[in-house]
Amino acid sequence: MYKYLSAIHSPEDLKKLTTSEKIVLAHEIRTFLIASISKTGGHLASNLGVVELTIALHTVFNSPSDQFVWDVGHQAYVHKLITGRMDGFDSLRQHEGMSGFPKRNESAHDHFDTGHSSTSISAGVGMAIARDLNGKTHEVISIIGDGALTGGMALEALNHLGHCKANVKVILNDNEMSISRNVGGMSISLNKLRTNEKYYKLKGNTKRQLMKLPSLGKPLVGLIRKFKGSFKYFLVDGSAFFEEMGLTYIGPINGHDLEGIIKHLEMVKHVDGPVLLHVVTKKGKGYPFAEQHPNKYHGVGAFNPSEPILSGSKVDYSKVFGDKLIHLAVDNPKIVAISAAMIEGTGLSGFAEHFPNRIFDVGIAEQHAVTLAAGMALNGLKPFVALYSTFLQRAYDQVVHDVCIQRAPVVFCIDRAGLVGNDGETHHGVFDISYLSHLPNLMILSPKDQNELRAMLSFASTYMEGPIAIRYPRGVADHINEAPAGNFEPEVLKKGNKIGIVATGKMVKIALSAAEKFEGAEVGVINLRKIKPLDDSFVDVLSDFDKIITIEDHMLAGGMNENVLRFLRKNEMKQQLFPMGIDDVFVEQGEMDQLLSALGLDELGLLRKIAEVLNG
Amino acid sequence: MYKYLSAIHSPEDLKKLTTSEKIVLAHEIRTFLIASISKTGGHLASNLGVVELTIALHTVFNSPSDQFVWDVGHQAYVHKLITGRMDGFDSLRQHEGMSGFPKRNESAHDHFDTGHSSTSISAGVGMAIARDLNGKTHEVISIIGDGALTGGMALEALNHLGHCKANVKVILNDNEMSISRNVGGMSISLNKLRTNEKYYKLKGNTKRQLMKLPSLGKPLVGLIRKFKGSFKYFLVDGSAFFEEMGLTYIGPINGHDLEGIIKHLEMVKHVDGPVLLHVVTKKGKGYPFAEQHPNKYHGVGAFNPSEPILSGSKVDYSKVFGDKLIHLAVDNPKIVAISAAMIEGTGLSGFAEHFPNRIFDVGIAEQHAVTLAAGMALNGLKPFVALYSTFLQRAYDQVVHDVCIQRAPVVFCIDRAGLVGNDGETHHGVFDISYLSHLPNLMILSPKDQNELRAMLSFASTYMEGPIAIRYPRGVADHINEAPAGNFEPEVLKKGNKIGIVATGKMVKIALSAAEKFEGAEVGVINLRKIKPLDDSFVDVLSDFDKIITIEDHMLAGGMNENVLRFLRKNEMKQQLFPMGIDDVFVEQGEMDQLLSALGLDELGLLRKIAEVLNG
Repeated sequence: MYKYLSAIHSPEDLKKLTTSEKIVLAHEIRTFLIASISKTGGHLASNLGVVELTIALHTVFNSPSDQFVWDVGHQAYVHKLITGRMDGFDSLRQHEGMSGFPKRNESAHDHFDTGHSSTSISAGVGMAIARDLNGKTHEVISIIGDGALTGGMALEALNHLGHCKANVKVILNDNEMSISRNVGGMSISLNKLRTNEKYYKLKGNTKRQLMKLPSLGKPLVGLIRKFKGSFKYFLVDGSAFFEEMGLTYIGPINGHDLEGIIKHLEMVKHVDGPVLLHVVTKKGKGYPFAEQHPNKYHGVGAFNPSEPILSGSKVDYSKVFGDKLIHLAVDNPKIVAISAAMIEGTGLSGFAEHFPNRIFDVGIAEQHAVTLAAGMALNGLKPFVALYSTFLQRAYDQVVHDVCIQRAPVVFCIDRAGLVGNDGETHHGVFDISYLSHLPNLMILSPKDQNELRAMLSFASTYMEGPIAIRYPRGVADHINEAPAGNFEPEVLKKGNKIGIVATGKMVKIALSAAEKFEGAEVGVINLRKIKPLDDSFVDVLSDFDKIITIEDHMLAGGMNENVLRFLRKNEMKQQLFPMGIDDVFVEQGEMDQLLSALGLDELGLLRKIAEVLNG
Repeated sequence: MYKYLSAIHSPEDLKKLTTSEKIVLAHEIRTFLIASISKTGGHLASNLGVVELTIALHTVFNSPSDQFVWDVGHQAYVHKLITGRMDGFDSLRQHEGMSGFPKRNESAHDHFDTGHSSTSISAGVGMAIARDLNGKTHEVISIIGDGALTGGMALEALNHLGHCKANVKVILNDNEMSISRNVGGMSISLNKLRTNEKYYKLKGNTKRQLMKLPSLGKPLVGLIRKFKGSFKYFLVDGSAFFEEMGLTYIGPINGHDLEGIIKHLEMVKHVDGPVLLHVVTKKGKGYPFAEQHPNKYHGVGAFNPSEPILSGSKVDYSKVFGDKLIHLAVDNPKIVAISAAMIEGTGLSGFAEHFPNRIFDVGIAEQHAVTLAAGMALNGLKPFVALYSTFLQRAYDQVVHDVCIQRAPVVFCIDRAGLVGNDGETHHGVFDISYLSHLPNLMILSPKDQNELRAMLSFASTYMEGPIAIRYPRGVADHINEAPAGNFEPEVLKKGNKIGIVATGKMVKIALSAAEKFEGAEVGVINLRKIKPLDDSFVDVLSDFDKIITIEDHMLAGGMNENVLRFLRKNEMKQQLFPMGIDDVFVEQGEMDQLLSALGLDELGLLRKIAEVLNG
């Protein structure tokens, strides 16, 4: 079925093919990706967009001695196929299966693990400097998307690269995502580059002439530079951004013209010092449903490849958040929403439609998002900053320095808190309680179900004393009871004696279920929905028990359990605490149920713990 | 003595002066700053550089209805003088005295608290958007240095500003610090702008012609834009960086020509949408010692104004670190050092001289610094990243995602860990144990004295299992004993019974001193120099005691005490723990001794605690 693809076990096999054969291979790869990902789920549109680019990279460079760094990394599937991992796609993103991201422990062709955005240029510069100091001569190639370029650390890295002049090849994979979202002044520059036909043509002629020369060595590059120098200001000015940073800019080129990419990569290979090749690709390329709706085919579950994916109808926490915020914003004109390139993911699409002047998508720029919110809050607005837990990590300092110290009444809506499943180590939101609990002035809320999330958003919308963080899980929103009390004191969901379970977030449902099933003692269940500060009433609640189990899908160190422990100590209470959570490991990928089970954080694990504690 | 300055109690008073009088005022301000700061200490060179700029800003804009945001903020002394805070300089940076940074609770003229770099554009954009949504019309002016522009969040903010087109005036206070340090491709662009005489002259002529026009309203701005549009590509290309971002660029202008600045600010005031005025200033202006050595006069203690400050001879931890690293690097060619615009502050000047090819100053770009180090480490180098504790906060995500997950053998040399003194809330390094302890794969070391720091650096230089964080305090390096054991297991410095003190870092010396003075019981003292992971031998050490006091100049939540507590629980030990540390407050400014005393973390506080625990 896959004549060429099946024969490729390493880049060496790819190199044996003619360009025409590689074009067939590209078609096979697309067919394979659609067939395979429609079964396992995964990232589709971004990988369909880089088929030719990846083939060209492996044609021109020699992996693994030449080192690719894939920014974000969910677009590295084609790279995985070419480097002998076709079989792995059966277990893609599954527990103990192949990762959806580059992993050094998976292949010698993966040199830097990625997952979060905008790291690849920094990593590439570091790798190139090490190469040079170690007297080696291989290439380092960072492949970065236009969206990722809006991240501050990518710009920090470009600035350093332009100065230190390390030989790093930067491939800008411009799939116009920053354009479709209309984010950032820089995207306007990129757009100018893309659309200026005059430039395209002029550059094209230049290059055609140059290509006729016998060799692509340094003299040619000198010539290109000379041409570029004189053309520069007669052309469009978009490239100036990169030139100003100190990089040689080449492009833009068509990212689906395999022959063209290969030729330009050969040129790039012979440029000394930092160079950026601007490649324009189309997300979802070759699969019409995905071309039309790349966002729907960004990260997908299993789907029927012969029908378009419809919008999901399930009520997840993101949707609860988005809908409630619209509701609140109708009555409160001070409410604004901020997103970092995650309008859809965080459930803000509806808000954006209703209030186009009150939504601010800043690009992949979490640091700016948070301090922007601080500025808004101090001038009288009520900003809700919606970010995934794992991405708020980028703005830790801004939370401390610009929000908490000034008690700016910002609301952090922390989506994907706790385990997230198949994205694995880099994406689990299992650190936020730890990196937020030690910050003075910050209230931390954690709803057990959708009603509680609504109540918390409502409360937060008028709370002006300081910042609030509301953390809620990925996935379908539970519905446990109707009317949470307004003040979010610890909620006794089930009375007990001797032993009580203190749970937060999605663990509340598991705790309730286990407590009801347990035979041999009345097990109490407390919903700790306000993790910080802890109310005085918690003393009475805890006094009912001798032994307390805490359970959270979060790190134990610095987690909810330690907030409880501090409370016990301050109130000189002698209850014994038995914490359940994640013990000093990065958690791998897998379905949520598998991960909870593996960590002993499912119903069975809790039942075992109850028995152990009772008998201990 | 200060004819004009003494008469200024608000910007209204300033506005009454003629330009000539303001020039005299500038002189008076410089005289005052030198006289005052030479007594109290503080930031001198940066403030001497912005005297004319600040006078001009308060001439053209109307504070407090117009809102200034001072990036970093240690250059806001002149602003404080003009806004009625001359008397405060007697208590500058002292305990319960006037802050060395803008503080909203200090004056209605301070609109956003700063301290860390690169926040002012984000804050300004947020404030401007709030202004617009609230239907107000005042100005928002962000004043940012060229060094701060290398910070990723400032670039994120510029990118967003260029897109959202909010009316924010950005004043680039270019004191060539990024040049003197030769950091970043962007600095090359700025330099081109500064030095291109042709541009200067051409722009000057244009402006002179424009200035003859009767009013500086919108028509003029349109004209300027038209001129700029046609001139742009005949001029230098440095301004393209900002133009590409979507801002109107004006400059560069001489930052010590008061009349010129005022004229250009009037022009800026009438530009619609985002505009950047490039003002070239000289750090230390008007005080020859400071002009010659601006770094020595950046942050100073009390000094004799009629003599140059000499380099200090005291041995602080930064110097111990820098000297030892040179020593190690001689024998180990894999060692490299990374700094984020803090070569001198972190003690790396000597290393930079010895190993110019092995030092990497990336500018104020902590995020890039950390991921750069990860890339270097994974390609075989041994990078030491030297950052202040409070600034490593900027790179929390990179520590998690790029270093710890990959076990990259990076060494974080965390200077200024714990309380730092007069810089106050924004600068105390009292969060690092909390934001690092929950990260898998990371070892955390904390030396009690200079010998231990040397031993730790030596150990770290060959440790390849994963990352290490070594946190050490600001100030003179203690010398407690000679030869620390190689493995950094908990060190019993004084045997005791019943009660033991577990201390880390600079608290060890205080603990020893208190334990020796205490009468009525033998108080043990344990130096917890490896905070994570805790060795098994700690069980035996702790078993000697019934009651354990922990002491750290760090937050209690997530601090060293909770690492000890987790250890006790895991080992099912029943010892009672009495933690001393900072309890959920941001700590103000003051001398170290005053702060420790106010927090009960000095010898007296510890003696009281010992008595309380013994009798409890």
